[in-house]
Amino acid sequence: MSTITFLSDFGLRDEWVGVCKGVLKRIAPEADIIDLSHEVPSYNVREGAFLLFASVSYLPVSVHLAVVDPGVGSERRALIIEAGRGDLLVGPDNGLLTPTATRLGGITKAVVIENDKYLLTPLSFTFHGRDIFSPVAAYLAAGVPIEEFGPKIKPVFLAGCPWPEPVRFADRIECEAIHVDRFGSLRLNLPSERSGLAPGKKFTLNTDQRRNWALTFEKTFSDVPPGQLLLFNDSSGVVAIGVNQGSAAEMLQLKAGDNIIIYLK
Amino acid sequence: MSTITFLSDFGLRDEWVGVCKGVLKRIAPEADIIDLSHEVPSYNVREGAFLLFASVSYLPVSVHLAVVDPGVGSERRALIIEAGRGDLLVGPDNGLLTPTATRLGGITKAVVIENDKYLLTPLSFTFHGRDIFSPVAAYLAAGVPIEEFGPKIKPVFLAGCPWPEPVRFADRIECEAIHVDRFGSLRLNLPSERSGLAPGKKFTLNTDQRRNWALTFEKTFSDVPPGQLLLFNDSSGVVAIGVNQGSAAEMLQLKAGDNIIIYLK
Amino acid sequence: MSTITFLSDFGLRDEWVGVCKGVLKRIAPEADIIDLSHEVPSYNVREGAFLLFASVSYLPVSVHLAVVDPGVGSERRALIIEAGRGDLLVGPDNGLLTPTATRLGGITKAVVIENDKYLLTPLSFTFHGRDIFSPVAAYLAAGVPIEEFGPKIKPVFLAGCPWPEPVRFADRIECEAIHVDRFGSLRLNLPSERSGLAPGKKFTLNTDQRRNWALTFEKTFSDVPPGQLLLFNDSSGVVAIGVNQGSAAEMLQLKAGDNIIIYLK
Repeated sequence: MSTITFLSDFGLRDEWVGVCKGVLKRIAPEADIIDLSHEVPSYNVREGAFLLFASVSYLPVSVHLAVVDPGVGSERRALIIEAGRGDLLVGPDNGLLTPTATRLGGITKAVVIENDKYLLTPLSFTFHGRDIFSPVAAYLAAGVPIEEFGPKIKPVFLAGCPWPEPVRFADRIECEAIHVDRFGSLRLNLPSERSGLAPGKKFTLNTDQRRNWALTFEKTFSDVPPGQLLLFNDSSGVVAIGVNQGSAAEMLQLKAGDNIIIYLK
Repeated sequence: MSTITFLSDFGLRDEWVGVCKGVLKRIAPEADIIDLSHEVPSYNVREGAFLLFASVSYLPVSVHLAVVDPGVGSERRALIIEAGRGDLLVGPDNGLLTPTATRLGGITKAVVIENDKYLLTPLSFTFHGRDIFSPVAAYLAAGVPIEEFGPKIKPVFLAGCPWPEPVRFADRIECEAIHVDRFGSLRLNLPSERSGLAPGKKFTLNTDQRRNWALTFEKTFSDVPPGQLLLFNDSSGVVAIGVNQGSAAEMLQLKAGDNIIIYLK
Repeated sequence: MSTITFLSDFGLRDEWVGVCKGVLKRIAPEADIIDLSHEVPSYNVREGAFLLFASVSYLPVSVHLAVVDPGVGSERRALIIEAGRGDLLVGPDNGLLTPTATRLGGITKAVVIENDKYLLTPLSFTFHGRDIFSPVAAYLAAGVPIEEFGPKIKPVFLAGCPWPEPVRFADRIECEAIHVDRFGSLRLNLPSERSGLAPGKKFTLNTDQRRNWALTFEKTFSDVPPGQLLLFNDSSGVVAIGVNQGSAAEMLQLKAGDNIIIYLK
């Protein structure tokens, strides 16, 4: 397992990402590091969870290091999760890793990091990305078995997915925007393969702003005129709302976390 | 050929760059990836083309993966171009690769990507960077011959350079700003080695704003007083307009794509 | 020595970072490159110096390439510094490398880069990062001895640390903010291990704005209520001023370079 993927909310301006990579490389010099994103908004667990979830099917079987950690310094647990095809997820127990573990086929093992033999000392109070999560990810990449790091924990005790399941009714699906991408498309908590939505069908959107928006489900942006809304299967594997050559987030005045009702008519 | 350079307009906030690197590494785990820029303004083919053109002489002989693709989902072709010293360029047929191929000494072979054996399936409608261009770049880096990917195409049928040639008259050169760098310098469509401009000479600029600006051609910024305009040979190999300790784009109220006339007097 | 760390003020939008990596990889294809930051504010030697200083204890023994170079094109020297545990620092002689050399245990050797056998030619007037510092860093990583690059220089002749030493009095410490991080914490020129400040003690801050601020020294942010100031040992090894769930820079209206007096009462 020689690849470590790395996602955080550290930003690229300060030294934090480079410092973590230094820690990784001192312990596992042969490991290959793939940056997913370090521009997750500060402390936004939901957005970090989505980006990892959206990426993982395309990544090599890896150690996935993910640090978005508003609870640093508190009692929140530090975790290693083994999932599906053999990937190892390392990060705080706040839901950041949960959707990705589910997408990989479910948790096969989970361990609470407690063995300070594999941590940097003295442990800082504010930078567990450097002192706990990076060295653990590197030792995993270097072949240390997961059981070495601490006691097992049952998956049922771990923090759940940071977004709710969509709720289906005969005439509508109640869902939530979980991410807004660079182009302003709203990615929903509605997996494409179970959405039941299909190209060419007509729908109505209802948002908290209580306006109704008529739109169709299409294969891609250019299937509607410029400036017009559409539903489509986003490349990340969820249904999204977009605007051809425009921003759905702006047009609908919505942001990540907002509720959306899709009426099936 | 174990190096892949990577340029895109995906930005570093969303998961797209990391996903493409995952695809590259799953197919070509030994390849070394050099990021050129992922902050090309969305869909700005001209700016992406300039950055690759400005870099290529300093890069190892590589597979150059470049994705700025406003025509994704349309009928635009997907290309592999072999050029000059043996570099392979992979990207959409919209002019993004053309100036770089010319700078490398010209196109020696071009192929339209059609063999879906080397693509990800099912093909998405919106993310050909992931599903077409990344896997093709990786298979090329892994040694698959260019002919494997599809039929040859004559260079004459490919999209041309996204910026015009400068036009020379007895008393002036009509050119265009093709890129504005971080410091506000305007990089022109005028290659230094063929500009005929030399240090110490005086010129007048005329822009669409119809003001006249007197300036000299100098070796470097500090050859003029702070706040003053100059013409100079930019490190990218083209003539540029700068301001010592200031921004030429701001002073001249110009942006990429604007016309500039340099009067030779 | 197969790792090169890389810090600059080039930004990630233009082609400059990618071009330097191309130069590094053509000369030292086996070298592993770790990016520290390329978002140092343009020409801000102090901030670049701090980020390298804050990182270095966590990095592998490496060639550290650092380019923040307001004096490019002038007579400022180009340096290689050997320090402490065997690290090699490459960059301009403007103080950028000095605090890091000190933190590594002091300069053991310094050389002025003069041997143009190891430089790119023709040398540009504006991009010594590409033409001088990158090739030298790569040749060092590839094993060329430091003496090959030019004459030795005595450390006393090199530019000093870009920030002053803190000044201690019986009742106060006069210090300076040397960096503001992403969260608005003010990192001071006061190394934690020699600060004499300890958790639980009370202090008063006095700034140029001449307001007095009462605060305590704590282990971490959550030891004070939200919105309240604290002094703490930052993860970088210096004392910092923060606000729990807020920005100290905003609350105190201070920026990097501003003076702060800590009254010991």
